Amino acid sequence: MMGDNGNNISTLRLGEVALPNLPLFQKGWVWLTGAGPGDPGMLTLHALNAMKQADVVVHDALVSEEILGLLPDTAKIEFAGKRGGKPSFKQVDISNRIIQLARQGKRVLRLKGGDPFVFGRGGEEALALVQAGIPFRVIPGISAGIGGLAQAGIPVTHRDVNQAVTFVTGHMSGGAVPTDLDWQAIAKGSPVIVLYMALKHIGEITGHLIAAGRSPEEPIAFVANASTPDQKVVETTLGAVHQHPEQFQDLKPAVIILGDAVRLRAGLDWLGAAEEGRELNPDPLGMLIAQAVG
Amino acid sequence: MMGDNGNNISTLRLGEVALPNLPLFQKGWVWLTGAGPGDPGMLTLHALNAMKQADVVVHDALVSEEILGLLPDTAKIEFAGKRGGKPSFKQVDISNRIIQLARQGKRVLRLKGGDPFVFGRGGEEALALVQAGIPFRVIPGISAGIGGLAQAGIPVTHRDVNQAVTFVTGHMSGGAVPTDLDWQAIAKGSPVIVLYMALKHIGEITGHLIAAGRSPEEPIAFVANASTPDQKVVETTLGAVHQHPEQFQDLKPAVIILGDAVRLRAGLDWLGAAEEGRELNPDPLGMLIAQAVG
Repeated sequence: MMGDNGNNISTLRLGEVALPNLPLFQKGWVWLTGAGPGDPGMLTLHALNAMKQADVVVHDALVSEEILGLLPDTAKIEFAGKRGGKPSFKQVDISNRIIQLARQGKRVLRLKGGDPFVFGRGGEEALALVQAGIPFRVIPGISAGIGGLAQAGIPVTHRDVNQAVTFVTGHMSGGAVPTDLDWQAIAKGSPVIVLYMALKHIGEITGHLIAAGRSPEEPIAFVANASTPDQKVVETTLGAVHQHPEQFQDLKPAVIILGDAVRLRAGLDWLGAAEEGRELNPDPLGMLIAQAVG
Repeated sequence: MMGDNGNNISTLRLGEVALPNLPLFQKGWVWLTGAGPGDPGMLTLHALNAMKQADVVVHDALVSEEILGLLPDTAKIEFAGKRGGKPSFKQVDISNRIIQLARQGKRVLRLKGGDPFVFGRGGEEALALVQAGIPFRVIPGISAGIGGLAQAGIPVTHRDVNQAVTFVTGHMSGGAVPTDLDWQAIAKGSPVIVLYMALKHIGEITGHLIAAGRSPEEPIAFVANASTPDQKVVETTLGAVHQHPEQFQDLKPAVIILGDAVRLRAGLDWLGAAEEGRELNPDPLGMLIAQAVG
């Protein structure tokens, strides 16, 4: 699509590669599979193998249209997730549906955005399958809180910034902020914090973090529709979000990251730089300058 | 290989799938790419696309032989990492080498185990490339601390266990335990803690966690060579590791996970159950029993 910035595209003929042996999808099985943050290129070979063999695909709202477009015509596609304005599916209904399909002898692909075990309720669905006597396997995916942020040029870890990173979910099943989170400890324990599904309660959450001692000046970034053509990144400060959480509500679905890792974006956002003709900064943390001055 | 437990294998002809357009690897570029925990099936399509086009591959010790075996014959393979007994490469030497290769006009694939931005020094290498004026892109991979643990039946999050998970690296560049970690806060903030590269200092780290109030009875698991045919899982307790850290030193490279997420393995380890003929437990946390009693 673009010139010589490295984003020229070609259709890859993967069939020419000697590939590993991948499992056969047997009738009556459920494969709980992560589809990654949205970019079809972030699908794993296991996920593609699953998509190629599935009889029926039960997916959530975070699985992109481009990814569903890769399914063979023979695969029946069922939506089971949350989408603005429409009634959302309850977890028990989804579990019951995949059990029902498996009992019909279908090869059931349960396809979830991101990774099934990173705030994806994969464990709950798997235990429901165990209870029903349905065989399953779990296929990990790239989590948006890692790979989606990378696509925006933000690393969740960087040696000069953090030796620990905490991933937190911003809402419970009922939609409230999780009550058993120790925000004080989270704020002190991790220089970098990644928030999933936290948009609705971001005013309250940023308040907890400031109360726990995090500086209102600290950088925070919202990455909406990470890794898709609709990706949008907004960098601001913790204090600005706390004061005006309503200004960020259209950035959904978003992964939110707090900490100095956000500053690295000036050096690492190769995609944004190419698209916008920006120069990347080799010293986004100002360490070389700091050394020279110090 | 196996009977009707779902692990029958077939060679997948991915070339038959209508694939997304993937980027063209241009001469003089470096692609910093995650190879995942070891299973070639956990490679992403972007990673495979990179492998197919690379002139030279500079990889670390965590990239499995099976994955290197997928490279075309035309790709030159260079090792740059740590391996027992041999001198290890310094980060600056690796950065200089990939810069040198790019300047020669090569398509340079820097292939790392796991994900480049999860304790993988991807940011450091990318900033060195920016400084040298070399164009690059970052290709995320499945991190061993998520996908490797999943392959052992351990979810890093589960709604009944944790709304937060912290990933920590167990050593710094010099090999010491990170000094600026607040173990007290980490212990309090996250019911589940995932430790990378922590084997050498696991006695000291478990001591910090117990001192911070984590119960010596708490379950902890070591997953060595996650997702490969050599995968080995050892479940024990925090206290047992603290008392005899030397007993776990052969489990490398290992991802280590602390917390009740480990107990879910009894219900979710579908691969181990199939291989060992074990039954999975639909109630590994004892919640249904607790409800019945309570």
